[in-house]
Amino acid sequence: MGRTSTARERLVDATGELMRSRGYGSLGVAEICARADVKKGSFYYFFESKQALTVEVVDAYWREERATWTAELAASAPALERLRSLLELAPVVQRRGKEVTGTVDGCLLGNLALELSTQEPDVRDRLDGIFDEQIELIAGVLAEAAAEGAIPADRADLAAARAVVAQLEGLVLLAKLKNDPAVLDALWPQVRMLLGA
Amino acid sequence: MGRTSTARERLVDATGELMRSRGYGSLGVAEICARADVKKGSFYYFFESKQALTVEVVDAYWREERATWTAELAASAPALERLRSLLELAPVVQRRGKEVTGTVDGCLLGNLALELSTQEPDVRDRLDGIFDEQIELIAGVLAEAAAEGAIPADRADLAAARAVVAQLEGLVLLAKLKNDPAVLDALWPQVRMLLGA
Repeated sequence: MGRTSTARERLVDATGELMRSRGYGSLGVAEICARADVKKGSFYYFFESKQALTVEVVDAYWREERATWTAELAASAPALERLRSLLELAPVVQRRGKEVTGTVDGCLLGNLALELSTQEPDVRDRLDGIFDEQIELIAGVLAEAAAEGAIPADRADLAAARAVVAQLEGLVLLAKLKNDPAVLDALWPQVRMLLGA
Repeated sequence: MGRTSTARERLVDATGELMRSRGYGSLGVAEICARADVKKGSFYYFFESKQALTVEVVDAYWREERATWTAELAASAPALERLRSLLELAPVVQRRGKEVTGTVDGCLLGNLALELSTQEPDVRDRLDGIFDEQIELIAGVLAEAAAEGAIPADRADLAAARAVVAQLEGLVLLAKLKNDPAVLDALWPQVRMLLGA
């Protein structure tokens, strides 16, 4: 039992690592199994397809990221400061990643959204749900910031929250392209402008 | 002569069409050749690799898009109105694409940037150069808008121009994920906020 449950976890972990830098299309089941040290027959015992495995990888990635988001947003500080702390993690995370792998690998969720959202419906549905959750988390803290008078009331809507997430994903794209986490140092000042803060 | 030059163009065109919706990693040379009606031996006569072909595809895509950008930005209107006209094309283009293919395929440049920028150095260098050009084109019109008094002078810098491009790419990502061009209708109002206009 311990042995089988470990194999399943190794498949999810190995795919998460490989997919972050390599994407989806160029990654084969054989390579995933080799990295996870699992036999190919076992792969199809646990997962019916690469798509099914990817949904679990995406879930595991967001579970961890969401824990960070909710912890930052639940801290005891004014709402706008909590949002700032959360967004200022983006360059920190990408710098840390680059120290390990040598590359700015960006956000697995954004990478997969642009690579394959028109193709793999199960992955796309999951990603869509996750980005909706992100936008709702941001909208919640914007509503608090408006109540505290830190931003205008008309900047505390879903459209503004979506623009914050879009700014994050767009700058991650440019940081990945330049392989330079410093591109993300501009995130907070630009978001402040977006919010009229 | 006519025959060979046509085969080369067909390879570039077919790859552009396939790659827009399918990405890079999952696309093989055999499939490209089949769509272009070109023999596999001819592929390697014209291009040493899929990466080399992709650089040409990216160049062809940007050549066409840049012609649109420069035409919009050279129109006779106040600078901020020209920027607005350019950005309001984004939902129009994605709506038109969806009518043809049924899917919001987004921006080929952004798709490739997130899928493979850490992997294929030649494509990455080309994409990086193109996004720099986009940012410079936007910075130029922002400088004019500031001179006309339409935005504050401190919003007419490269960082603000980069934030405009990031907002565009980020909202394209969310529009692709929802397969809904209407997400991009928010682009101009959010960019106005970013620019303090």
